[in-house]
Amino acid sequence: MEVELKEMLDDLLSLRKSLSDPSLRASIDQMQVRVDRLTHLAKSVPVRRTKVKDMSAEVVDSNPYSRLMALQRMGIVENYERIREFSVAIVGIGGVGSVAAEMLTRCGIGRLLLYDYDKVELANMNRLFFRPEQVGMTKTDAAVQTLSDINPDVVLESYTLNITTVQGFETFMSSLKNKTFRSSKEGSGVDLVLSCVDNYEARMVVNQACNELNQTWMESGVSEDAVSGHIQLLIPGETACFACAPPLVVASGVDERTLKREGVCAASLPTTMGVVAGLLVQNTLKFLLGFGHVSPYLGYSSLKDFFPTMSMKPNPQCSNAACLERQKEYVLAKPARDDAAKAKMEAEASAAAAAGDVPLHVDNEWNISVVDDNEPEKRTCGTSSDALPEGLTRELPSADEFQKPQPSGATDTAIDDLEDLRRQLDALNAK
Amino acid sequence: MEVELKEMLDDLLSLRKSLSDPSLRASIDQMQVRVDRLTHLAKSVPVRRTKVKDMSAEVVDSNPYSRLMALQRMGIVENYERIREFSVAIVGIGGVGSVAAEMLTRCGIGRLLLYDYDKVELANMNRLFFRPEQVGMTKTDAAVQTLSDINPDVVLESYTLNITTVQGFETFMSSLKNKTFRSSKEGSGVDLVLSCVDNYEARMVVNQACNELNQTWMESGVSEDAVSGHIQLLIPGETACFACAPPLVVASGVDERTLKREGVCAASLPTTMGVVAGLLVQNTLKFLLGFGHVSPYLGYSSLKDFFPTMSMKPNPQCSNAACLERQKEYVLAKPARDDAAKAKMEAEASAAAAAGDVPLHVDNEWNISVVDDNEPEKRTCGTSSDALPEGLTRELPSADEFQKPQPSGATDTAIDDLEDLRRQLDALNAK
Repeated sequence: MEVELKEMLDDLLSLRKSLSDPSLRASIDQMQVRVDRLTHLAKSVPVRRTKVKDMSAEVVDSNPYSRLMALQRMGIVENYERIREFSVAIVGIGGVGSVAAEMLTRCGIGRLLLYDYDKVELANMNRLFFRPEQVGMTKTDAAVQTLSDINPDVVLESYTLNITTVQGFETFMSSLKNKTFRSSKEGSGVDLVLSCVDNYEARMVVNQACNELNQTWMESGVSEDAVSGHIQLLIPGETACFACAPPLVVASGVDERTLKREGVCAASLPTTMGVVAGLLVQNTLKFLLGFGHVSPYLGYSSLKDFFPTMSMKPNPQCSNAACLERQKEYVLAKPARDDAAKAKMEAEASAAAAAGDVPLHVDNEWNISVVDDNEPEKRTCGTSSDALPEGLTRELPSADEFQKPQPSGATDTAIDDLEDLRRQLDALNAK
Repeated sequence: MEVELKEMLDDLLSLRKSLSDPSLRASIDQMQVRVDRLTHLAKSVPVRRTKVKDMSAEVVDSNPYSRLMALQRMGIVENYERIREFSVAIVGIGGVGSVAAEMLTRCGIGRLLLYDYDKVELANMNRLFFRPEQVGMTKTDAAVQTLSDINPDVVLESYTLNITTVQGFETFMSSLKNKTFRSSKEGSGVDLVLSCVDNYEARMVVNQACNELNQTWMESGVSEDAVSGHIQLLIPGETACFACAPPLVVASGVDERTLKREGVCAASLPTTMGVVAGLLVQNTLKFLLGFGHVSPYLGYSSLKDFFPTMSMKPNPQCSNAACLERQKEYVLAKPARDDAAKAKMEAEASAAAAAGDVPLHVDNEWNISVVDDNEPEKRTCGTSSDALPEGLTRELPSADEFQKPQPSGATDTAIDDLEDLRRQLDALNAK
């Protein structure tokens, strides 16, 4: 706009020169004042801040990272600036996903991959993030617009697609595998996938992709009556996958079938979604930056401010073939894990001894200790539907009742030695 | 801008008519094209949605309230539209207060009163809400700009002032007492005060104002190391006031004195602040719309996802004179409360008997039952510093160590019969 106004001013000046009648010059002068005023108005339109090369801990008002770098100075995080190395994929840019994306953007995450196919509607204005002037834009475009203005340091990738379609799933998988952002990265190209979708089918597709890629992810959800929600950590082979056990939400007492009637929509609140997004991203930060304890499952029941926790082991009878593969790998890698943990503990013990400290049972920096994988964890649930902690009920159908989508690109990996895996797992459970 | 461009076009047309030289008309025509283009550009600038007269439950994409009215249809809230009658004051438009204001705005609250004196800085960009282009604006102005675009139905009042100054406290008090928004309202002009400030002195000033006005309020806070926070409900005379007991935060292990050094700032995270704002506004909605259970105190310790709860009775030796007045009133009003509760229970019992239900011990709609005020509550803490639940420690100095501000306008109400009150309270505690 400023370019056009500059050209306009030039036009006026040349016209003024060409005029022979001095009475008309006053009219040109007046227009010149108008153009000046318009230029001033155009300049008040927001300008973006420039990119920052290194995160500074300097305590000045103009530093967008001082309050984050303070986490390091205060001993919460060992190296906050590592956040710039990480890639996080957010599937579903709705009430939870959009706020999660904004939080990670403000925290200075390296790269965000955003997936959605929906458009912004006025009906979304009761949640945080989207604004009325964005109505009609795709959620991914609107998010990129807002997020890039908030923090130009974050690399944003926008995928306007439905991951439950064949084409969408293929793009989803290949985008997760892309390592151009950090070529040295082990595993897939992203560090964490956050599922912020609102339906069972999409969750099962995220589960399929993550099981195939051996990709750790976090699931989130809010109940149809808007007053409860949950987050869950899923590590292929190590924890239950989304198909291992029927998905859980905090008891809400609402019959899902009552929502299917014509013209009836689910309720939603910015508060519940904001809390769930906050818990999700807080656990994401703990996971990526290695501080605190990452919750395996955390519920939020807002009517009573009740926060149930639990953890679930994988189901040896899981219907998902890729999950069984990951379970097998996890069991086979046990001796290597034990050796690594033992070596680490010994190294720390000798370092502590060298420093004159008490060598054993000290808290180590990463809170890692050698534990027997076979030992049953406290508060661990089996896969029996009767074993849920107080306050939790199943809201969705069990995985077996669900017609599993078969997107092309999904590898139907045959388990070479399923019987062998079963025997190992049975032996494990029997101990 | 569009007005200016229209005038510009008129100028050009009249100039064109006055020109005798046809060769100059081409130059005018070219400028006319430019103005048309600028008008088009100016029109692409966001427009605000129009105000809504009544909240509709209609399920269409263009209805900003459908997902909130669904709370009513799903049996969570009896009458959601009542939200438009309520006034909420938010003191401190920082990391927690700004997000709380956005949540209440999106929920369609009737009226918001916003208090702050600070300006937006780039150092605030690690929390939600403010945007880089708002740097340099006062936080109240920037908030009003954003909130009025999000929901023009909310009545916004902006107070750019420091409540801890004499002048600021006077304006604060008179603004809380203003009943022009809803003249029929009992008590003060607002339904709830949310304290979202970041220091002890400002909290004590909010406490003073609310004790004087007999105004229920909620306090919120985030620890200096950014990984824990809390909310607390304060009802003058009924619960502990902020001066009754030293303020609490979840154990963080950080010595406040270490923060006072030159150039050292507190850490902050959008996640912790988003969770605290979500818990605060969720409890505000429960309080205003009468659903669920309002938490008297709820902590959030993010390293372990631990959420301690507790409640505190008022301290009969509180150093705040207005608090002692409210305590006295509360004790004296006990017979009236008992009678009202008994009458309500009897009315419900007879209604239930008429309907053929079991008359006694049924759950009543508001979960109200006749309880003996003297009976010690479960999980209630005394005012002894040794009586805190696990995981809670005091972070700030006790009220007595604080030099209480004496703003003009603060009524130094002499307790007429303090000895009488003491006797009553002693008798109460002895039972």
